[in-house]
Amino acid sequence: MTVAKNSRISPLDPAAAEPFYRQIYDRFRSAIASGLLKPGDRIPSARVLTKELGLARGTIEAAYSLLAAEGYIQALGQAGTVVTPGLKPRLPASSTVPRSNSSVAPPSFRPDSILPFQMGLPALDAFPRKVWARLGARCIRAMQPADMVHPPVYGLQGLRAEIAAYLQVSRGINCSPSQIFVTSGYRHTLELIAHALLKTGDRVWLENPGYPPTRELLELMHMTAVPVSVDGEGMIVSEGLKAAPRARAAVITPGHQSPLCVSLSLPRRLALLDWAARSNAWVIEDDYDSEYRYVSRPLPALKSLDRDGRVLYAGTFSKVLLPGIRLAYVVVPATQVERFEQVSQAFAGGSPQLTQAIVTAFITEGHFARHIQRMRKLYATRREATAAGLESVLGKHVRIDPQPGGMHLILRLKGRRSDRRLVARMRDEGLYGEALTDWMADKSGASAVLLNFTNIDSQATAENLGRRILKLI
Amino acid sequence: MTVAKNSRISPLDPAAAEPFYRQIYDRFRSAIASGLLKPGDRIPSARVLTKELGLARGTIEAAYSLLAAEGYIQALGQAGTVVTPGLKPRLPASSTVPRSNSSVAPPSFRPDSILPFQMGLPALDAFPRKVWARLGARCIRAMQPADMVHPPVYGLQGLRAEIAAYLQVSRGINCSPSQIFVTSGYRHTLELIAHALLKTGDRVWLENPGYPPTRELLELMHMTAVPVSVDGEGMIVSEGLKAAPRARAAVITPGHQSPLCVSLSLPRRLALLDWAARSNAWVIEDDYDSEYRYVSRPLPALKSLDRDGRVLYAGTFSKVLLPGIRLAYVVVPATQVERFEQVSQAFAGGSPQLTQAIVTAFITEGHFARHIQRMRKLYATRREATAAGLESVLGKHVRIDPQPGGMHLILRLKGRRSDRRLVARMRDEGLYGEALTDWMADKSGASAVLLNFTNIDSQATAENLGRRILKLI
Repeated sequence: MTVAKNSRISPLDPAAAEPFYRQIYDRFRSAIASGLLKPGDRIPSARVLTKELGLARGTIEAAYSLLAAEGYIQALGQAGTVVTPGLKPRLPASSTVPRSNSSVAPPSFRPDSILPFQMGLPALDAFPRKVWARLGARCIRAMQPADMVHPPVYGLQGLRAEIAAYLQVSRGINCSPSQIFVTSGYRHTLELIAHALLKTGDRVWLENPGYPPTRELLELMHMTAVPVSVDGEGMIVSEGLKAAPRARAAVITPGHQSPLCVSLSLPRRLALLDWAARSNAWVIEDDYDSEYRYVSRPLPALKSLDRDGRVLYAGTFSKVLLPGIRLAYVVVPATQVERFEQVSQAFAGGSPQLTQAIVTAFITEGHFARHIQRMRKLYATRREATAAGLESVLGKHVRIDPQPGGMHLILRLKGRRSDRRLVARMRDEGLYGEALTDWMADKSGASAVLLNFTNIDSQATAENLGRRILKLI
Repeated sequence: MTVAKNSRISPLDPAAAEPFYRQIYDRFRSAIASGLLKPGDRIPSARVLTKELGLARGTIEAAYSLLAAEGYIQALGQAGTVVTPGLKPRLPASSTVPRSNSSVAPPSFRPDSILPFQMGLPALDAFPRKVWARLGARCIRAMQPADMVHPPVYGLQGLRAEIAAYLQVSRGINCSPSQIFVTSGYRHTLELIAHALLKTGDRVWLENPGYPPTRELLELMHMTAVPVSVDGEGMIVSEGLKAAPRARAAVITPGHQSPLCVSLSLPRRLALLDWAARSNAWVIEDDYDSEYRYVSRPLPALKSLDRDGRVLYAGTFSKVLLPGIRLAYVVVPATQVERFEQVSQAFAGGSPQLTQAIVTAFITEGHFARHIQRMRKLYATRREATAAGLESVLGKHVRIDPQPGGMHLILRLKGRRSDRRLVARMRDEGLYGEALTDWMADKSGASAVLLNFTNIDSQATAENLGRRILKLI
């Protein structure tokens, strides 16, 4: 940090045992030791600090002399006073503060760096960065006072209208912009729904296997997850009916079941909607990647069959644009608009105006539709190339499920190999993978590894990566 | 929306009573009627739609003929097919969807448009928009793959380090970057704290009067607010001790009490911290605008006295930069870092990379410190000018509290005038104001109006606005 000459320093503690010069000395020393002030950073001049703190000039000078004598700072005349360039901190950095341990949650679902096969990412090399940067620069230059104040908590009106139009034409969902609430991601969507419609202790059907963060979030909100098995037709609705007929909600991925990629069959769709209508339960449709279907047409959203207003449709821009923009949305039944407005008012501050404005422009000008179309073709190619490449190297040890859509492949491990052990080894070697058993409620079941293919650019790349996996099997 | 030629249309419902051509016709007609498709918008060609839906070409053509015959669409040859330019929708827009009624929450605390005296806004005319736009354009052009993926859920590392350095030097808070969690605003901060440290039914001391959204959010999360009166020394801690000694937390604005602007005295600070340490309660310090103090030095943060690790410090960029960027943060005790990491992982998707990167650059390059310094001077001037202007016109009817800091004035109404009635009248006349009684737990008490002065550019403006208020008193 460059500490501007005139930055305000907070007053010292007159009740402290230490004299003022020592308090000042300690404060700078600890900022330097912890790396908050770095070699070469400017610090306020003694004159400025004297005025700021309302202390005698001599007090400040005493502190600065001490710091200079110990080599922490250097006065450079006109250029001001700086932390000594090249200084190696001699103190442990904030030794009173324990190093945080990030192992509390499995890192698997929240990538911080980008590894081959990393789940949940679109093709980063194929994103139209130039168009994006042009629109972004234009939006930020066009900022008016109305764009500087609190954005509408439900989302920018223009963005809500574009989403409604997109859903109407592409997903067969008939909704008005007022039914759309912009959120900062799927978790935020789920939290908003839980705040609005569920309460502590409510039981919720979850697909088994299913996306682990859904379970984690609902359990932290003190709801009870009821695992419901998935077969070739999607969630086995009859099992849910038997296990917990009075559940308040079901979270489901009807388009491509996450992670098995099967589609919920029409009879099950109707059975699920029938249950929801009869028992006033809510169906939360997580439609995270249904645009990406390669062997036939995308299925219409479950929401398009929702005649009784029981379905909440959760969409996201993370997969079709970028996760980094943190924009998603939920379509709520018309009867629940007021409730969601109320809850959004209380909880949400709204998403930043800028990112919403960029996405709105991206859609309005037709880039969005073109991008989806291009990605659908690209992903079909990469999916085939990745499957072929891995198959050719790993064919003896794995079976790759044929899947009609989505962004990842499922490598079924032959024999009695542990998917969790393989995934742990892959991580050690800088390869990403998720174990199917980690997606199961009881962490058991079929052994398989989930691999995202959208960033694998050729069959040759897949073969090379396959050879790295082969050594670990 | 421009529907790109090749955008995907979701399949139709084969089980529906209506023939396919009629379903297609209905879908477009309703999209046009509701305004989702606008005059001049392009729709997919019959050829593309035929392919998309896998239907006979004749079916699509039948639908398009009907739409054309009724004047909804026009074929323009090479230029494609468009919604008829100049078309006036003849159907009621989505008549099945009830118009949402926004009256469920008082609009007072969530401005959608900008009115004179609007609370919670910094001086919009004085924001360095050019610098901001330059940094923004640079950040968005510099976007790399690592910036496109999920941002770290705790906030960008660079931003956390800048915040820690700023707090160290400016607020006397000694913390490491790992103790800082970036959020999307004060409400998000409060929600995160509640998820991490509180549970249903917990009692929480709140200042009375106090910021209404705090109470609203905690009550929606099923906690019990315990109002604690405020006098000239801030929250009367002894009253809290009597009313609810076993409360789990206290939310407090020690710098400038919101809205009375008094500072929490040192004995009360110590009493509060003592209570928290003895009863393992949490003190949530909402330090929303303490940079803006005009008559003496800013007080150090309560957090700087926190020797037992009981204080959570909530800061925000809404007041010192812009509300529209949706960035705030919380400093958590070192012992709670793991817990907050866990809860952030489950709930937060992180704030957008772009807005965080812009703010980081803004701080790193020294604009932040300069901006705060400039605003402190500007607000001191505007505060005096606004007080003088209003005093000269309204002096018979109101008394303006002398306040050492903050961004708003308090107009105490003489006699028995209702602040709520005056505020309602002001709103009707396009003037913003909040009634002090609306900030009271029981909606009663002293009659006063809160007016933000940061956007009042001169005494003459204040006098003009004062004359408009005079007519309403």
